Amino acid sequence: MSAQQNVHLQPNAGLIIIGNEVLSGRTQDQNVAFIAQNLNELGIVLAEVNIIPDVQDKIIETVRAFSKIYTYVFTTGGIGPTHDDITAGCIANAFDVPLELNQKTADLLTARYAASGFKINEAQLKMARIPKGAQLIPNPVTQIPGFFIENVYVFAGVPAIMRAMFEGIAPSLKHGIPIQSKTIHCYLGEGRLAEGLEKIQKDSPKVEIGSYPFWSVGKHGVSIVVRGIDTALIAQAAEDVGKLMRRFGGEPEYESSEAPR
Amino acid sequence: MSAQQNVHLQPNAGLIIIGNEVLSGRTQDQNVAFIAQNLNELGIVLAEVNIIPDVQDKIIETVRAFSKIYTYVFTTGGIGPTHDDITAGCIANAFDVPLELNQKTADLLTARYAASGFKINEAQLKMARIPKGAQLIPNPVTQIPGFFIENVYVFAGVPAIMRAMFEGIAPSLKHGIPIQSKTIHCYLGEGRLAEGLEKIQKDSPKVEIGSYPFWSVGKHGVSIVVRGIDTALIAQAAEDVGKLMRRFGGEPEYESSEAPR
Repeated sequence: MSAQQNVHLQPNAGLIIIGNEVLSGRTQDQNVAFIAQNLNELGIVLAEVNIIPDVQDKIIETVRAFSKIYTYVFTTGGIGPTHDDITAGCIANAFDVPLELNQKTADLLTARYAASGFKINEAQLKMARIPKGAQLIPNPVTQIPGFFIENVYVFAGVPAIMRAMFEGIAPSLKHGIPIQSKTIHCYLGEGRLAEGLEKIQKDSPKVEIGSYPFWSVGKHGVSIVVRGIDTALIAQAAEDVGKLMRRFGGEPEYESSEAPR
Repeated sequence: MSAQQNVHLQPNAGLIIIGNEVLSGRTQDQNVAFIAQNLNELGIVLAEVNIIPDVQDKIIETVRAFSKIYTYVFTTGGIGPTHDDITAGCIANAFDVPLELNQKTADLLTARYAASGFKINEAQLKMARIPKGAQLIPNPVTQIPGFFIENVYVFAGVPAIMRAMFEGIAPSLKHGIPIQSKTIHCYLGEGRLAEGLEKIQKDSPKVEIGSYPFWSVGKHGVSIVVRGIDTALIAQAAEDVGKLMRRFGGEPEYESSEAPR
């Protein structure tokens, strides 16, 4: 698809969510939408998300595969002190380097626990071990840092901490052209617009047109999303979509997009 | 890990979420948690989730890979009438069969649109095309069915429709032993419990012990989740976790689990 080829000129990213708690249905993921929306603003295309269990071989294999394919890889989860936190060791393994103690983090943790009246234990000290060659990602929430090595950025899974870590490293990422979108709703079945939408997509190969049906209080409608990096092309395609809706007796409602989607 | 090996005796599943709207951050996924929780009840382990874009080659490759690895594969999204709905064709391609018109669905759609005063168009008729050899999955919400072929079940992406389709096919899946869990909270840092938790996990290789820190209104705590298929082993490990918490001055709160997690 031409629309895809165009988007593929932008830097892209793969996200790996490491966590039995999402696969078990215990935890509703909140990290995908945050990272997706923030990457849009940076002009980085989120190309794929993989949610995988706390299983060493699976983590290593996925990190290696994503690291080769995507400009950036983000992982969330598994960097705490307990037995099920195995991400740091897996990342080290994926890059064939050892884990080593980061003295700065060890000192910070030692002081932090001492301030609470405890002597740091082996498990807590584990959080200071990062792959050789990795650099720290600051954590302004609980201080315990994440890290990055080559193109792989390792975040905590707790949403508030993940967000702070992401915001800390965002300025250092290679930015693309911010990805914008316009959404047009109307109360028509999407099937009636399908042929016309396909024509608009063919005429505008550099935008990506998505069609999403909805039902609200017994009313059946559709949201058409026009997405891309060229404001004028998006505006033109959105106008064409509006005309198409009117031709079928629909009344297009344009959604103002404060945030890029 | 022994806990994993034990769980791996159960039937398992991979979920493929097909949708630019999730990767763009426009839509917050609601399907993973529903499918995960319902699979627990059926004793089927959700082993992996992949969120991928509406790109033909990626869909075909992921369906083929998952179909070989997992007992069941579920897909959501991309079965509507518009140009961006390409799932049915990709599934046909993944199994090297043609798409063919399902006359029953074609008749149903024709009657449905006629009742609304419209003659069915080519795009709407596309929803009646399923891979040769596939069987229909009923859709009590909007009538337009999903389908399954071999071990791959193709659902709509709209949560209410996906849920109805899942519930329709659930009785026909090969069930395992329902996956249960017990959650124990306390207001201690997880690092203090880490060594003891690791010992409990080693002593109980047939359960899976996860540790999830939380912060609620300035209080720092941890939720320990014990998960498995043997009620007695889960109860024993949960009791051991409670004792461990008490040893460090914590007060364990056991969460009653109405629903398996």
